[in-house]
Amino acid sequence: MHKYAREAYKAGIRFIGGCCGFEPYHIRALAQELAPERGIIPGILERLNAGEVVIGDGGFVFALEKRGYVKAGPWTPEASVQYPDAVRQLHREFLRAGSNVMQTFTFYASDDKLENRGNNLKLTGAQINEAACDLAREVANEGDALVAGGVSQTPSYLSCKSKADVKAIFRKQLDVFIKKNVDFLIAEYFEHVEEAVWAVEVMKETGKPVATSLCIGPKGDMHGVSPGECAVRLVKAGAQIVGVNCHFDPMTCVETVKQMKEGVEKAGLKAHYMVQPLAYHTPDCNCQGFIDLPEFPFGLEPRILTRWDMHKYAREAYNAGIRFIGGCCGFEAYHIRAIAEELAPERGFLPSASEKHGSWGAGLEMHTKPWVRARARRDYWENLKPASGRPQCPSMSVPDSWGVTKGHADLMQQKEATSKEELEQLFDKSKTH
Amino acid sequence: MHKYAREAYKAGIRFIGGCCGFEPYHIRALAQELAPERGIIPGILERLNAGEVVIGDGGFVFALEKRGYVKAGPWTPEASVQYPDAVRQLHREFLRAGSNVMQTFTFYASDDKLENRGNNLKLTGAQINEAACDLAREVANEGDALVAGGVSQTPSYLSCKSKADVKAIFRKQLDVFIKKNVDFLIAEYFEHVEEAVWAVEVMKETGKPVATSLCIGPKGDMHGVSPGECAVRLVKAGAQIVGVNCHFDPMTCVETVKQMKEGVEKAGLKAHYMVQPLAYHTPDCNCQGFIDLPEFPFGLEPRILTRWDMHKYAREAYNAGIRFIGGCCGFEAYHIRAIAEELAPERGFLPSASEKHGSWGAGLEMHTKPWVRARARRDYWENLKPASGRPQCPSMSVPDSWGVTKGHADLMQQKEATSKEELEQLFDKSKTH
Amino acid sequence: MHKYAREAYKAGIRFIGGCCGFEPYHIRALAQELAPERGIIPGILERLNAGEVVIGDGGFVFALEKRGYVKAGPWTPEASVQYPDAVRQLHREFLRAGSNVMQTFTFYASDDKLENRGNNLKLTGAQINEAACDLAREVANEGDALVAGGVSQTPSYLSCKSKADVKAIFRKQLDVFIKKNVDFLIAEYFEHVEEAVWAVEVMKETGKPVATSLCIGPKGDMHGVSPGECAVRLVKAGAQIVGVNCHFDPMTCVETVKQMKEGVEKAGLKAHYMVQPLAYHTPDCNCQGFIDLPEFPFGLEPRILTRWDMHKYAREAYNAGIRFIGGCCGFEAYHIRAIAEELAPERGFLPSASEKHGSWGAGLEMHTKPWVRARARRDYWENLKPASGRPQCPSMSVPDSWGVTKGHADLMQQKEATSKEELEQLFDKSKTH
Amino acid sequence: MHKYAREAYKAGIRFIGGCCGFEPYHIRALAQELAPERGIIPGILERLNAGEVVIGDGGFVFALEKRGYVKAGPWTPEASVQYPDAVRQLHREFLRAGSNVMQTFTFYASDDKLENRGNNLKLTGAQINEAACDLAREVANEGDALVAGGVSQTPSYLSCKSKADVKAIFRKQLDVFIKKNVDFLIAEYFEHVEEAVWAVEVMKETGKPVATSLCIGPKGDMHGVSPGECAVRLVKAGAQIVGVNCHFDPMTCVETVKQMKEGVEKAGLKAHYMVQPLAYHTPDCNCQGFIDLPEFPFGLEPRILTRWDMHKYAREAYNAGIRFIGGCCGFEAYHIRAIAEELAPERGFLPSASEKHGSWGAGLEMHTKPWVRARARRDYWENLKPASGRPQCPSMSVPDSWGVTKGHADLMQQKEATSKEELEQLFDKSKTH
Repeated sequence: MHKYAREAYKAGIRFIGGCCGFEPYHIRALAQELAPERGIIPGILERLNAGEVVIGDGGFVFALEKRGYVKAGPWTPEASVQYPDAVRQLHREFLRAGSNVMQTFTFYASDDKLENRGNNLKLTGAQINEAACDLAREVANEGDALVAGGVSQTPSYLSCKSKADVKAIFRKQLDVFIKKNVDFLIAEYFEHVEEAVWAVEVMKETGKPVATSLCIGPKGDMHGVSPGECAVRLVKAGAQIVGVNCHFDPMTCVETVKQMKEGVEKAGLKAHYMVQPLAYHTPDCNCQGFIDLPEFPFGLEPRILTRWDMHKYAREAYNAGIRFIGGCCGFEAYHIRAIAEELAPERGFLPSASEKHGSWGAGLEMHTKPWVRARARRDYWENLKPASGRPQCPSMSVPDSWGVTKGHADLMQQKEATSKEELEQLFDKSKTH
Repeated sequence: MHKYAREAYKAGIRFIGGCCGFEPYHIRALAQELAPERGIIPGILERLNAGEVVIGDGGFVFALEKRGYVKAGPWTPEASVQYPDAVRQLHREFLRAGSNVMQTFTFYASDDKLENRGNNLKLTGAQINEAACDLAREVANEGDALVAGGVSQTPSYLSCKSKADVKAIFRKQLDVFIKKNVDFLIAEYFEHVEEAVWAVEVMKETGKPVATSLCIGPKGDMHGVSPGECAVRLVKAGAQIVGVNCHFDPMTCVETVKQMKEGVEKAGLKAHYMVQPLAYHTPDCNCQGFIDLPEFPFGLEPRILTRWDMHKYAREAYNAGIRFIGGCCGFEAYHIRAIAEELAPERGFLPSASEKHGSWGAGLEMHTKPWVRARARRDYWENLKPASGRPQCPSMSVPDSWGVTKGHADLMQQKEATSKEELEQLFDKSKTH
Repeated sequence: MHKYAREAYKAGIRFIGGCCGFEPYHIRALAQELAPERGIIPGILERLNAGEVVIGDGGFVFALEKRGYVKAGPWTPEASVQYPDAVRQLHREFLRAGSNVMQTFTFYASDDKLENRGNNLKLTGAQINEAACDLAREVANEGDALVAGGVSQTPSYLSCKSKADVKAIFRKQLDVFIKKNVDFLIAEYFEHVEEAVWAVEVMKETGKPVATSLCIGPKGDMHGVSPGECAVRLVKAGAQIVGVNCHFDPMTCVETVKQMKEGVEKAGLKAHYMVQPLAYHTPDCNCQGFIDLPEFPFGLEPRILTRWDMHKYAREAYNAGIRFIGGCCGFEAYHIRAIAEELAPERGFLPSASEKHGSWGAGLEMHTKPWVRARARRDYWENLKPASGRPQCPSMSVPDSWGVTKGHADLMQQKEATSKEELEQLFDKSKTH
Repeated sequence: MHKYAREAYKAGIRFIGGCCGFEPYHIRALAQELAPERGIIPGILERLNAGEVVIGDGGFVFALEKRGYVKAGPWTPEASVQYPDAVRQLHREFLRAGSNVMQTFTFYASDDKLENRGNNLKLTGAQINEAACDLAREVANEGDALVAGGVSQTPSYLSCKSKADVKAIFRKQLDVFIKKNVDFLIAEYFEHVEEAVWAVEVMKETGKPVATSLCIGPKGDMHGVSPGECAVRLVKAGAQIVGVNCHFDPMTCVETVKQMKEGVEKAGLKAHYMVQPLAYHTPDCNCQGFIDLPEFPFGLEPRILTRWDMHKYAREAYNAGIRFIGGCCGFEAYHIRAIAEELAPERGFLPSASEKHGSWGAGLEMHTKPWVRARARRDYWENLKPASGRPQCPSMSVPDSWGVTKGHADLMQQKEATSKEELEQLFDKSKTH
């Protein structure tokens, strides 16, 4: 249908439809393909209500850190202003891979975070948020994608600032999103459901659809609230889409969202569900997720998921009733493409980037070596147990488990850079924990 | 010195020099920083003769495959024409990470390869080679980098075509490189030294400096010629720079180049040395390298080197007397940056991308969590043994070992796509091998 | 005290006591050392009531299978009759290592089991049980050990025979134990608490102290009854000592007994606790334990615990309030000795076999090589992460999970040998499960 | 044939032979079965000259250390005097498993070793050697086995004593062996071929057949003499059987003996070959073998070979032309049985202990659980990659590599116990090496 729509459009036809055998989803495919030309893109709730699969994008901070545009530690998104070409290119890769959502690259772009621990940026949050909205919109308009304005947890909350103070932080970012007219809002990466609820309350003031994802696992948030209860609180606060992102690997995240769904349904409520996990295997995590793994953030390579792992994830998420399926840290375009390829039968089409990818390795039929051509088949890749090439490394780690959460003195955030003395103290603590 | 030069330039000063205490390498640093403005870039041999470290770039086919612009299997570089923005962006990331060489994205861009096994491209080799030269030059001019035109092994050689035929293939690519006036030439990714010698002979006709790297390990080329003997043959044929690229992990490649150096010195010859290895750990490879690993090419993730592995590689390569140090498949910008950071003391400056990276994890001093701030130190990352998170996977694989090389019927290349029957036969063979 | 008692005895002194500073436990030590000479050995309940640590023995079927006297599959203990020297020697090794309990080698020595699936033994259960009692008694009398008569789960129960039938099976074994006057009784290796309760009921008829251990993990018995509830039922039926044995690794077993203890205490009951785990690491087990691991029973070698693992286990069990601490399948004498060495400070003495073992590797001070002498220290062994030397093997397995339990047709036991057709069907099932 | 001979004998027949179809090896089988009754056991050279497979036994020091009768560190065999029952039982297990050689338990039973580093034994070497001969002979007479008197490397050699001094040490042990009339002699566990040659020279004086095995790997002895050259020197000195034992895993040992065989054949000499490797996987060893692995000697458990690994080893050794095939440290009776079972087709009979073992897991047909019965087949066990259950451990280690050998001050042996100061110095060295 996509091809037909495109060909018809290229041929100059402007009244494009169908006859016998055409089902609504066929029509939807036509609309989807020609959405950019028509400027009519269905909204996030419209899509989810129709039962469509909405594919998210991947994590920008990790991908741009590797490319040289984000600094690990502060993790702030000033690249939206400083290196727009690099940010735009990454948006395009995800769009091409099948993403229907361009999240503004505004993670940690709140003023309190931008000046945390000596992060001497000369840019204001507003500047960064505006630039990020423009980049997301520019690329979204090149395909079938929506722009989502994103807020995330704040140093202010961790430092025990008041509810009003924390809400004011969110409001500043949201003002830009409304001015730039994003399509919907996502509050993501919240470790404490309390703070997420506050974010939802502010977001609801805007009238835009609201999605919320916590960075929690099956054991619940940092205050011990279970996933089911977290979801109920978020839905009651007004979130239409709830789920989890970051901190855990795909299967763990799907499991957590399943619990959320059970909680919501048990409470007699209704919601849509989203999942945007890590692209890292994390079977050894405790409740804080991959932050506590000793490999975080500079030694995670051996944990990166293959595209075939992503096929399993996409299927599992779909079977769990989740329809907004994307990624977070560690995801690159080929991971998103794998989701789109796995769900192509359900969605009826492949993403643009599949032009450069034979499903399940079929492109290897063109390889020079005969034994590599012999790998051009699904069962080979589906059953492969990839080796690490690291015989002196373990397969699982023991995570740090300092057990401190909001309210603990060690977690107070500050503007000043960490001093040498503070660092020495931390090293000492790390030996005894 | 770099900062001084830049600041002086910004201040409008155009006669910039030094006085007491200035050494030649200080002057070189000024020249390096302002090279783009002055349009005077020292050539590859000038640099190597002066004992400078020249940092190469990373592998384009693997990086762009993940981004959705190259098809695994044919591995051809038509993206230079089709998606110039994506190719340009990747060049820029490597430049920013410290690369002094922009290799034209012309791997496998020979006409015989472009039409191999049903790779139905409508583009000619000349079109691709020209576009690639323009992109490499555009980005090289933005920094202190040279453009290297690259040729690689051909299906014609594998299919036992004549020496004249194979040379004609190389000559077609080289005609473009001369027209576009690249700074030097690289013949890379040769499994058989015989074919590489042919390539050198054609390249020498151009008068440009010639570098050659084979994709072999310590056991030598596919005909069993040892690394030392390979190097001698290449140097005698006229290559000024010899080494290896691809197929093996960094430590294995450095070991191989050491053997080449010993061979060359034993023969009373002189040369410069280059190494551009994989960014994958491959302790379990046989002589054919990572091609034979069961994980090639879609399950290599657990083998990806961390940035800290790259520090060790850079130091090892430097200590071995290798001065042209870069990467191949699997390398991303942050891997190249790690090389530049490790060798910063020798070179006297950090790459631009270090703006977004604290050496040895120092940026983590700005992290929100205290236990992650405690990781902001060299010995933590230097000693970490990263876990795979894959407890059901092995640490080493058994490589395929079909033992066929040039001349074997199974290795004959063809224009036609692999047929279903041929695939069935390959699957059967793969079970018995 | 042990040495003093022994020396005094050797010197012909027969009135041996103490004066100022002597505490009850000193007297107990004298009694312990000279128990064999005096023929007065305190009973199991006496010891446990006094807060003593009672050390169990290791698993006989696995140890004797490796030595060539037990057949894996039927796992029956006819060696007590056929090869008494081999059985006696194993008893002696455990006694020397510190065991205070000699369990009669009567595992699976019920008549219904002895004739299961073509196990053509010409011996009756009575013959085996009698021989086993004699051997256990002979060795127990050589040291400070009690004889425990043991019964275990029956094929009759699995095949849905009546309560009366199953009890009759137990009664036949117990008749021998009473005739041979064992010191106490153990019902061990029960997967279903229901059957264990039946065993307890029969054992209580004898008037002997009753211990019961299930082969379950933290998820409870095969009918889903939780460990806490299982323990309550057993205590209510009359067992004075409850716990678990076999099927899981030491830490998992301790965790399970902890749950039992909590259950018993919550119910306002009282009991002593025992634990006799595997000497295999089993982090990847499901509820059925190591039976389901693909390595069972002939590929478990890489999972064998070191003596240092046993130190941790002994400490953990002790801290959990467990006082009857022993082992099961995989345990050899040196594992039991490690328990005795870890708890030597609490018990006040080392086992005889420590004569040939320097604690924490101290014996290595006498090694020929200086770098091995450098390993003669606790922190070296305590922190060692031993490698498997198997780079092509995983660290965890996926257990079989057929999910069949008592009542399922596949579990019906039979006298006849498994036929070829039945085997074929099983192979087929194993592929689809 | 074995069964026929036994049945005939039991039936009172004393003239037992064959008619049509009987080949020499059939007659040999009859002789073998009835050897104990007839008191006629063919010698070691007779067997090897006839092309028979001679199966060795396993390592006594490691097996008895685990059972509590040998002290790790000094590793001396005083148990022959102190605990004859335990030593006899181990001999019997190996005999039952198929061993044709009972090695006297006299490893390190030279007087200089018995008093090394504070090993305060009150026993003389002569006492131990005599007791060991008696035990070996007693058990050998119970089956088809020969007694081999064994000497091993001496502290005197390591401490640079003269050739005459070292030879005198050997001579003292040999005097006992001759007095006790052992069947042949083995000089085993030599790291330096020079010392082994001295041992051979002394052994040749006795007129007994001489076997010699070095504890070296493919890189040769501690002075860098290659395996081939080592073997040539030993054969020239008079050894009729040469090979390796201990220090490396089976496949590495077989590879080393192959090199020995090539060396001997290239030199135009003739010999028989023996191999008695570790039962531990040691792919990560350097030239010193498992002594240097950080797991030696108390953390080797995860490396223990399964019985199926032994099948592969036996086949590989046989195919390499080795006919004296046994084991060393880590071997238990079931490992030896696996060798005998693998080579049963060539030898024509199974060992006694196979009475309790179905080949390739066939005994599991009698298991209670259907999914374990499904494992009663060869391909299951042959292809199993056993997991370690240790996800936080590596698969390979980095061996210690102090690089000291005979003549280095660190290797001087002494009578006195290692002092605290010496230990401290060793710990410090171990950190910097």
